[in-house]
Amino acid sequence: MDERDVIARLERIATDPAARGLADDAAVLDGLVITHDTIAEGVHFLPSDPPASVGWKLVTVNLSDLAGKGATPRAALLSMCIGDEDWDEAFLDGIEAACESYGLSLIGGDTIALPIGAPRVLGLTAIGKAGARVPARSGGKSGDVLWVVGNLGDGAAGLRLLQGDVHSTGLLVDQYRRPVPLLAAGQALARQAHAMMDVSDGLLIDLSRLCEASGCAAEVDLEALPLSRAFVAELGQDRRARLFAATGGDDYALLAALPEGVDPLALSLPSDSTIAAIGRLAEGSGISLYDAAGPVELPETLGYEHRRD
Amino acid sequence: MDERDVIARLERIATDPAARGLADDAAVLDGLVITHDTIAEGVHFLPSDPPASVGWKLVTVNLSDLAGKGATPRAALLSMCIGDEDWDEAFLDGIEAACESYGLSLIGGDTIALPIGAPRVLGLTAIGKAGARVPARSGGKSGDVLWVVGNLGDGAAGLRLLQGDVHSTGLLVDQYRRPVPLLAAGQALARQAHAMMDVSDGLLIDLSRLCEASGCAAEVDLEALPLSRAFVAELGQDRRARLFAATGGDDYALLAALPEGVDPLALSLPSDSTIAAIGRLAEGSGISLYDAAGPVELPETLGYEHRRD
Repeated sequence: MDERDVIARLERIATDPAARGLADDAAVLDGLVITHDTIAEGVHFLPSDPPASVGWKLVTVNLSDLAGKGATPRAALLSMCIGDEDWDEAFLDGIEAACESYGLSLIGGDTIALPIGAPRVLGLTAIGKAGARVPARSGGKSGDVLWVVGNLGDGAAGLRLLQGDVHSTGLLVDQYRRPVPLLAAGQALARQAHAMMDVSDGLLIDLSRLCEASGCAAEVDLEALPLSRAFVAELGQDRRARLFAATGGDDYALLAALPEGVDPLALSLPSDSTIAAIGRLAEGSGISLYDAAGPVELPETLGYEHRRD
Repeated sequence: MDERDVIARLERIATDPAARGLADDAAVLDGLVITHDTIAEGVHFLPSDPPASVGWKLVTVNLSDLAGKGATPRAALLSMCIGDEDWDEAFLDGIEAACESYGLSLIGGDTIALPIGAPRVLGLTAIGKAGARVPARSGGKSGDVLWVVGNLGDGAAGLRLLQGDVHSTGLLVDQYRRPVPLLAAGQALARQAHAMMDVSDGLLIDLSRLCEASGCAAEVDLEALPLSRAFVAELGQDRRARLFAATGGDDYALLAALPEGVDPLALSLPSDSTIAAIGRLAEGSGISLYDAAGPVELPETLGYEHRRD
């Protein structure tokens, strides 16, 4: 029973309209957008990561889900395992900094002690106020233009650097450890997007989920993917590097399907937003990749999935 | 930094009125009552516990928090670690049974894989509709009568049996593994209670929290504690047994401070409710215990607290 089997079972249980068939990053209940992400040591963060960055990341990965629905942060409940005084203090520094930065009020949660030696498991439920529209993953239509806000691949590149040398530093490592949720961009795009979500497990796997939910295919121009200078300096921008960026997780970018003719730059995006049209939705199913040289074979792994083999 | 230090730090962060100063089992936001409990293998449940009962318990311990606020179950988000097909299936059977039994809709959450060998950590955020009144822990007044709905000590006695013999069965083991949230009783009492909470970590420790939040002392008649026949058959009802019942966790009973003169039996409690007046709130601070022989010294440990030493 891998993650997809479990989710299929959960989808059969989750019949309430608020659940949106679990085919979304967040639930929508009584004008609130609600999401929960859990992160585990050794899986979503490294034991060597600074604890303040772990706290920051726990808050911001949840806020990224709210950004993907165009919601405004309101409140959060924290599930925290405790045990090491210094670690716990610094972790709470990160929680507090992120909550203050994005106007999220901590209103509850739970503290538990895990058995000695167990990897840390930390969870957050984030609650946002819904805007006038809450775009689902499922609203994409053939002909929509696919836009990405934010750069792709930085987080995965930062993780790769840390896996090579735990003392690595720099912009890519920062992006892995301290992602920035694109809340204002999400609120602006939500007004027009047919479908929207955050990119957290990798562009191609997240796009495949949007396509499946929308009943569409997608065509993606690999050369249009937005890459940061730091990424290009580290990995280049050839086809191999672009496929790395398209399948790496920890982006916390936004992916939106906008009707053709809508110019996202007319939607009051923050002025420092990186935004790129990367392709289109089409009739059918599945993702086709291409670059200037023609069609590009889809990689075997589209992104990050939780599974024990 | 033990649980109290962490909570003190969290309280300084949690300044939003919805947080109720974290001095409550649940937050109250926009007419919703919201709570989150996380349970860990080897801490809150035994590796040998049937996985369906673990799923049941995860849902019902959260519903017990809603019951303590008089709320009506509405929706839940599940944080689930996956890995063992049979275990995961049976766990979801328990989640589904409890959700169906109490009208709780699963609307979202997260699935993750933990590192091999890590103890399971499972979380649930439960959301209820607030009733006309949502009694806090902090509203108790000197002179209020303390009422307990449900029996005390059964869950702790069940755990003790399982710790002696993992194959133990019977009512006490059932109460430990499959608690029943007292939702209808909570809704009835919420209309009149000055203060209310569920008893989950042990009567004396939970009452001490109510006293501290309310700025009151409490006097408790040890002989008035409601004990089940199964409990008395297993542990007797002498002072030692009653102190065990007063400090054991996993009760999921309700503790309410009602104004003197209010008869809870006039509040449309379910007809099968066990309800007992166990004492009073008084001026001052701290808990005094007594029985027919006179004052009883307070035990060193009032109940269950999470702390790593």
